[in-house]
Amino acid sequence: MDPCYVVSRCYETRINLVDDFADKLTDSGSTIPSGLIAAALAHAFALFVAVSVGANISGGHVNPAVTFGAFLGGNITLLRSILYWIAQLLGSVVACLLLKLATGGLETSAFSLSSGVSVWNALVFEIVTTFGLVYTVYATAVDPKKGNVGIVAPIAIGFIVGANILIGDAFDGASMNPAVSFGPAVVSWTWTHHWVYWLGPFISAAIAAIVYDNIFIDESTHEQLPVTEF
Amino acid sequence: MDPCYVVSRCYETRINLVDDFADKLTDSGSTIPSGLIAAALAHAFALFVAVSVGANISGGHVNPAVTFGAFLGGNITLLRSILYWIAQLLGSVVACLLLKLATGGLETSAFSLSSGVSVWNALVFEIVTTFGLVYTVYATAVDPKKGNVGIVAPIAIGFIVGANILIGDAFDGASMNPAVSFGPAVVSWTWTHHWVYWLGPFISAAIAAIVYDNIFIDESTHEQLPVTEF
Amino acid sequence: MDPCYVVSRCYETRINLVDDFADKLTDSGSTIPSGLIAAALAHAFALFVAVSVGANISGGHVNPAVTFGAFLGGNITLLRSILYWIAQLLGSVVACLLLKLATGGLETSAFSLSSGVSVWNALVFEIVTTFGLVYTVYATAVDPKKGNVGIVAPIAIGFIVGANILIGDAFDGASMNPAVSFGPAVVSWTWTHHWVYWLGPFISAAIAAIVYDNIFIDESTHEQLPVTEF
Amino acid sequence: MDPCYVVSRCYETRINLVDDFADKLTDSGSTIPSGLIAAALAHAFALFVAVSVGANISGGHVNPAVTFGAFLGGNITLLRSILYWIAQLLGSVVACLLLKLATGGLETSAFSLSSGVSVWNALVFEIVTTFGLVYTVYATAVDPKKGNVGIVAPIAIGFIVGANILIGDAFDGASMNPAVSFGPAVVSWTWTHHWVYWLGPFISAAIAAIVYDNIFIDESTHEQLPVTEF
Repeated sequence: MDPCYVVSRCYETRINLVDDFADKLTDSGSTIPSGLIAAALAHAFALFVAVSVGANISGGHVNPAVTFGAFLGGNITLLRSILYWIAQLLGSVVACLLLKLATGGLETSAFSLSSGVSVWNALVFEIVTTFGLVYTVYATAVDPKKGNVGIVAPIAIGFIVGANILIGDAFDGASMNPAVSFGPAVVSWTWTHHWVYWLGPFISAAIAAIVYDNIFIDESTHEQLPVTEF
Repeated sequence: MDPCYVVSRCYETRINLVDDFADKLTDSGSTIPSGLIAAALAHAFALFVAVSVGANISGGHVNPAVTFGAFLGGNITLLRSILYWIAQLLGSVVACLLLKLATGGLETSAFSLSSGVSVWNALVFEIVTTFGLVYTVYATAVDPKKGNVGIVAPIAIGFIVGANILIGDAFDGASMNPAVSFGPAVVSWTWTHHWVYWLGPFISAAIAAIVYDNIFIDESTHEQLPVTEF
Repeated sequence: MDPCYVVSRCYETRINLVDDFADKLTDSGSTIPSGLIAAALAHAFALFVAVSVGANISGGHVNPAVTFGAFLGGNITLLRSILYWIAQLLGSVVACLLLKLATGGLETSAFSLSSGVSVWNALVFEIVTTFGLVYTVYATAVDPKKGNVGIVAPIAIGFIVGANILIGDAFDGASMNPAVSFGPAVVSWTWTHHWVYWLGPFISAAIAAIVYDNIFIDESTHEQLPVTEF
Repeated sequence: MDPCYVVSRCYETRINLVDDFADKLTDSGSTIPSGLIAAALAHAFALFVAVSVGANISGGHVNPAVTFGAFLGGNITLLRSILYWIAQLLGSVVACLLLKLATGGLETSAFSLSSGVSVWNALVFEIVTTFGLVYTVYATAVDPKKGNVGIVAPIAIGFIVGANILIGDAFDGASMNPAVSFGPAVVSWTWTHHWVYWLGPFISAAIAAIVYDNIFIDESTHEQLPVTEF
């Protein structure tokens, strides 16, 4: 349990700050295309960088759902998963407090469903979009057969989130990351439908991890999975 | 006929879900630049990811026209082509049904020609834009001389589609992919001009495949074409 | 004088079609940010792809000014330069005719200066922006010391054009490429200020080529310059 | 003290011209999303290219704060740092003068705080955003453990700036680079709050450099730090 990992986790999750800032600033505009584009690009660029930055040190875990998938797939231990989760949630809360400090008290509203969107609709959205993210992590970064695709993996992981936000943001905020939803929820103390942003991503992370691990990754190479590269 | 291929095909085509979602959501906005940019970025990012994700397993076939070109060029068998086509069309239909489910019944309108655009205009557009796509696939991913360009090939393939949408979306939707047009057509049961979205891409895929295969790929290296990398 | 080169030149220049289309479609919107973004992204994506696509075969020459710089730097012969220039201009004209055909006669207006922009302002703009482009081509693709930067060179070359358009498009169209200006000028038969789009890029291509060749590229490695990679 | 370095420094900083142009042109629009997107993309693309272009020759230093971090980390000497700083500031001033020349006297307003944003808010913003930039430079380009991430490092460095602008531009211009603020301040001779754009970035560059150097870079490999790659 190298302390480096914890420090690194905190920092990487801190990059979600960018996400949170972008979400807040473009919040009122997210149902009109240009606000939507700003949010999608901010998330895509920031996640790409977060994964690149963390790849050398701890594997770029900034998402509790992805960490959960990696745990289910046997790629990290339960203890390390718990440490990562704590760092991710802490980072998100600190980010929201920093935002409040830097903006002189700008309201940090929690993720919420748009009017007319039921919790079941939102759950389907979170499952579908997070599945794409976790599957991309597996196929481009975890899979030992990845080859040259591994070089552009951080870009692919960032951009699938950007693409998903372009489709889901108008409905439920397209979180795909429980930590990103957690910080604003704590700071604004708003917990309505918060479970949707945990259950959806965890369900699809589990499905993606199990499916990919069992079908596409050859058993013989399984033991040598590069833990540090997603 | 490894079952992995079929599962993988389904998933990769499922990413067209992103495309379809984006198309629907930005539909009303696609004639004004910011809606256009949202659609172009969503397609560019999603296709880049789809190709990256599929490259390890089955070659990233998410487009019946590209598969047709690969078949004409002798890179895959007819049987595998047919399996791919079925998976691609199935994925597109499932995607549209999921969209309906997630949005509580949002209308999934089929691709259609803008007013004042004749079927011949649209056919030229589909031929020109799809030619660019298939030629890019050949030059950056199939060609044994590709070298380092192969590393950024998935990005190039995604971004040429983004560029093409920026020019063609206002005219006929710039499908470049019969599967992307097929799902909405089935779900909305609208078949007007649907043939345009098949004939155009297939014509240019055939031209691009034959031209590239015969002129630019050296005969001596032809037998060792890397089937799994486009 | 392999015929492949000529065919390839034609195709690569044909991608300027994307540029021309984008320019026309977003023309009325280019002074407002979202039309500007659409134009910048279309050019950035398309040029990145054009360079990637051509790198294997002829070096990705789609710009008479870049070809001129390569000729001055002694990297290609005069005869080949002339062949490239013909193919580039032909490609641009064909692209504009195809646009007219596909759109049922949409007006293809030539590049022009915005009101209040003098020819000297425009000349400075073309020199400054094209210098950035040609310098980027040299530093990331031609320079034998390029190393890993060569892998992302096509992206860098495309994106510097995108960045330049974001700054220059509102002033003079930010052509940076005489061929891109030539096609619309022929089809609309408008030659006012057309010389600006040739003189500016040629001046800065000459400066960039001479400066880079003499200062940054070591004489000892000069003879082995990789002709086929820009 | 090779003269090449000074020339190269000037050029690389000159690319900030793109930044400055974009800032000016989109200034009035930067509080609305599409102007914001244009500014973010222009900076992201231009910085990516500036880093790529300079990587071969001098390491892509275009930011006094990044140079300061490299000096603190013992990667470059004080003398070279001073030369770089002079070149960076000179480049920024020349860029603003060129802008004035090319536009026929367009006003080059200095960076300023939006109404309601205190200097302390702005300082926090500059510290948080520049920290992300310098940390990214260390993790993706300086760190000897960077591996394949080094290939996409210039893109990551450019895009983190793009992401940061999407969040900070509406507040204080999100400079993250004292040189970018210096040119407009000189040309418009406006020095109100100018110290914020120096103090903020220098504080976080110092923190990022010290933290990264001491925690994440193994002492044993420290002596062989690749000076020329950031």
